[in-house]
Amino acid sequence: MNYKIIRHILGWVLRIEGITMLLPLLCAFIYKEYNCISTFIICIIICIGAGVALSIKRPKKHSMYAREGFVTVGLSWILLSLFGALPFTVSGSIPHYVDAIFETVSGFSTTGASILTDVEALPKSMIFWRSLTHWIGGMGVLVFLVALLPLSGSNNMYLIRAESPGPTVGKLVPKIKTTAKILYLIYIALTLIQIVLLLAGGMSWFDALTHAFGTAGTGGFGIKNSSVADYSPYLQNVITIFMIIFGVDFSMYHLLLMKKPKLILKSDEFKGYIGIITASIILISINCNGMYDSVATTVRHAAFQVGSVITTTGFSTTDFDKWPEFSKTILVILMFIGACAGSTGGGIKVSRVIVLLKSIVKEIRICAHPKNTLKITMNGRVVEHETMRAINVFIMAYVSIFTLSLFLISIDNFDFTTNFTAVAAAINNIGPGLGKVGPTGNFSEYSFLSKIILTFDMLVGRLEIFPLLIIFSPYTWKK
Amino acid sequence: MNYKIIRHILGWVLRIEGITMLLPLLCAFIYKEYNCISTFIICIIICIGAGVALSIKRPKKHSMYAREGFVTVGLSWILLSLFGALPFTVSGSIPHYVDAIFETVSGFSTTGASILTDVEALPKSMIFWRSLTHWIGGMGVLVFLVALLPLSGSNNMYLIRAESPGPTVGKLVPKIKTTAKILYLIYIALTLIQIVLLLAGGMSWFDALTHAFGTAGTGGFGIKNSSVADYSPYLQNVITIFMIIFGVDFSMYHLLLMKKPKLILKSDEFKGYIGIITASIILISINCNGMYDSVATTVRHAAFQVGSVITTTGFSTTDFDKWPEFSKTILVILMFIGACAGSTGGGIKVSRVIVLLKSIVKEIRICAHPKNTLKITMNGRVVEHETMRAINVFIMAYVSIFTLSLFLISIDNFDFTTNFTAVAAAINNIGPGLGKVGPTGNFSEYSFLSKIILTFDMLVGRLEIFPLLIIFSPYTWKK
Repeated sequence: MNYKIIRHILGWVLRIEGITMLLPLLCAFIYKEYNCISTFIICIIICIGAGVALSIKRPKKHSMYAREGFVTVGLSWILLSLFGALPFTVSGSIPHYVDAIFETVSGFSTTGASILTDVEALPKSMIFWRSLTHWIGGMGVLVFLVALLPLSGSNNMYLIRAESPGPTVGKLVPKIKTTAKILYLIYIALTLIQIVLLLAGGMSWFDALTHAFGTAGTGGFGIKNSSVADYSPYLQNVITIFMIIFGVDFSMYHLLLMKKPKLILKSDEFKGYIGIITASIILISINCNGMYDSVATTVRHAAFQVGSVITTTGFSTTDFDKWPEFSKTILVILMFIGACAGSTGGGIKVSRVIVLLKSIVKEIRICAHPKNTLKITMNGRVVEHETMRAINVFIMAYVSIFTLSLFLISIDNFDFTTNFTAVAAAINNIGPGLGKVGPTGNFSEYSFLSKIILTFDMLVGRLEIFPLLIIFSPYTWKK
Repeated sequence: MNYKIIRHILGWVLRIEGITMLLPLLCAFIYKEYNCISTFIICIIICIGAGVALSIKRPKKHSMYAREGFVTVGLSWILLSLFGALPFTVSGSIPHYVDAIFETVSGFSTTGASILTDVEALPKSMIFWRSLTHWIGGMGVLVFLVALLPLSGSNNMYLIRAESPGPTVGKLVPKIKTTAKILYLIYIALTLIQIVLLLAGGMSWFDALTHAFGTAGTGGFGIKNSSVADYSPYLQNVITIFMIIFGVDFSMYHLLLMKKPKLILKSDEFKGYIGIITASIILISINCNGMYDSVATTVRHAAFQVGSVITTTGFSTTDFDKWPEFSKTILVILMFIGACAGSTGGGIKVSRVIVLLKSIVKEIRICAHPKNTLKITMNGRVVEHETMRAINVFIMAYVSIFTLSLFLISIDNFDFTTNFTAVAAAINNIGPGLGKVGPTGNFSEYSFLSKIILTFDMLVGRLEIFPLLIIFSPYTWKK
């Protein structure tokens, strides 16, 4: 294992975290939150100090393989979270460090689950930092590093592969550094467009920025206790559309830029994603008919909640825990399906679900005609055996961690619906669940043990399991 | 497709069903239930008449392949259920035919879920027939046919493979016919021993027979509204032990008969099964401490419920819906794990769970050292790629059917816990779930649509999915 390169990259991760904290510091100046000004200055010094200490010595060998890639990504996210939680505890906004870590991991992993009972009591600059973590975590800090750092070699692919969601990670262009740059440019451009549209609808700068961060990262931290319920229908619709946009594979936008829109329509995942969203909105609108003052309002709430849950954002405009069971069950199923691979969204991902459904159809045909050799195709290409295996083992690990977490948090003796959807909301990076952790509830009542487990689940969900598990396997550290 | 051999076997299945109805007919005579006597005579004539009509012409070609095996098993179980439901509706005990089919499929599939609100109101002979369906379904009617019928050729292996639970089906001896005979002899012998032990504990003949049928098939139909709660601790303990015994792979008993007990201890599945049971009993006993009058009572109830749920029997001695959430969550997890392959129990099966957990460990190691070639072993033997693929696709199909069923029955607007555990109880062939379908509840309140879906799930669970799906695939019927 090339420990030196890992240490070097971890140092850079902390440096960048320190730099990003300049934004909430600026916010603290604007709102004259003097306690927060000193907090952020202290935290910036800690982050950059530790970062420089780790990364000052350039490693001689830049060689990186799959193992280093996984370990670096896993450790980076753990460090990011431990240091990112400091402002909350230092300022006293979230006194207990375990709670602060829960909130920070929830931010970076773009989950949006909260242990806060009253968000609005937080200083503005803390709310800003909390929402900014979504934006940083959405596209990923290592993708950012690869785009910037002068790390030589195509081995950086291992970093991107370990951090980016989805069963396969394709390069948009032959050069990995350029791919990372294109991804971040699309990400920034889309975020800016959303900010402009929100400002046009009468939102304040503060609200527009924080909501755009939450949407772009498909995070879902609200800045009000009522989430997005109190904003105008126009603003809710803008957020709905942008949640769905950020749940699409970013390579689709690259195809658009390359003027190849026809190729987008050939994507099975894109078609499946749009199809599932449309069907869910129609079914929920019919099921919830009569609950709101007009059909238009019903459709608006249905579309918002569907977009929020399938992209695993987690904003809400209404208390969907009060919806009929059929609509709630649709939302629970969407929680697991999740967004597209290569987007900022979480969950199992539409492409994996499609491949798995195709494998069932294939199996039925093989049962009937065992001598036939059938292949599973995706976007017109054959799915390789190795990809298939990776998808299968991903699902199994996912189910196992889900089950183990459900088992452990049930010690707290909350009801099954609350526990089940709490784990689902954490591991799929959604935020709210049903019952006690529904849109009007939060995770504050869980014990510290449960909070630690759910924190782990959020990271597991964002990093798609293996970068995290590999750190805890003794086999990894053998020579 | 060799339609003639399929038709011929289906005929024999109905003949055997008619013959087995002689037992409840005898019961009706003993208890002088005149309405039931005529009912069973009519039904026996219908079954044997239809059976003879289908099977009177012997097919020239006995050739059978995987496809014929799956189709025959799927259709056999559907026919068995449609004809087996007749006595309930003809006698007026269960007036609606959909309800009667639910109850019959629940019997044959050894689920034990009931739509009856008052079991004790049923005539004795109907209760007897209801419990007998468990015993018939437990080991399987086609295994029975293979043991008896003069069907030539080793192709019968396809029938046994499609009907027997588990990822792989081994022959105990080279000859498949002899294997089937040995399986049935072990099954009969164990059932008889249990009957004797129950009689020794003071049970009446009627109670001993029906409970032995329910235990042997891991079915779980109670003959009282209180299930097994009113019997003595001795009788409850006998049932606990026999539930666990019938959840073991029957080839273990063959090893015992062959005087090779050491080989049993080499079975990963057997060790896993016993380990899970022991751990669950201990955890639940600690968690439920203080709920009953003594520690011994707590352990007895814990052991009974654990044995009942992991073997997917479904008897109960206490209302476990009132247990703390931790204990209930353990039971829900056991519902999915299920019993051993090659037993009469349902669920995913311990062996599949072990293989899947091993595949996760393997994946973590491969992530760390991609060049290593690691193999998954089970009972000291390497798990073949083909078996691995079959297990994976089984789980995916299982999850898909589970999700689709949950989605559809949620239209009835019951709570999530009830719906989730209702589908879990049906697809894993357990019987009771939690909430409205808990040990003191039943499935009567569900709509006919939901009952049909749950009926399908019970068959899907018993036949392990593909024999049933293959019937509905147009691809199967192509030339």
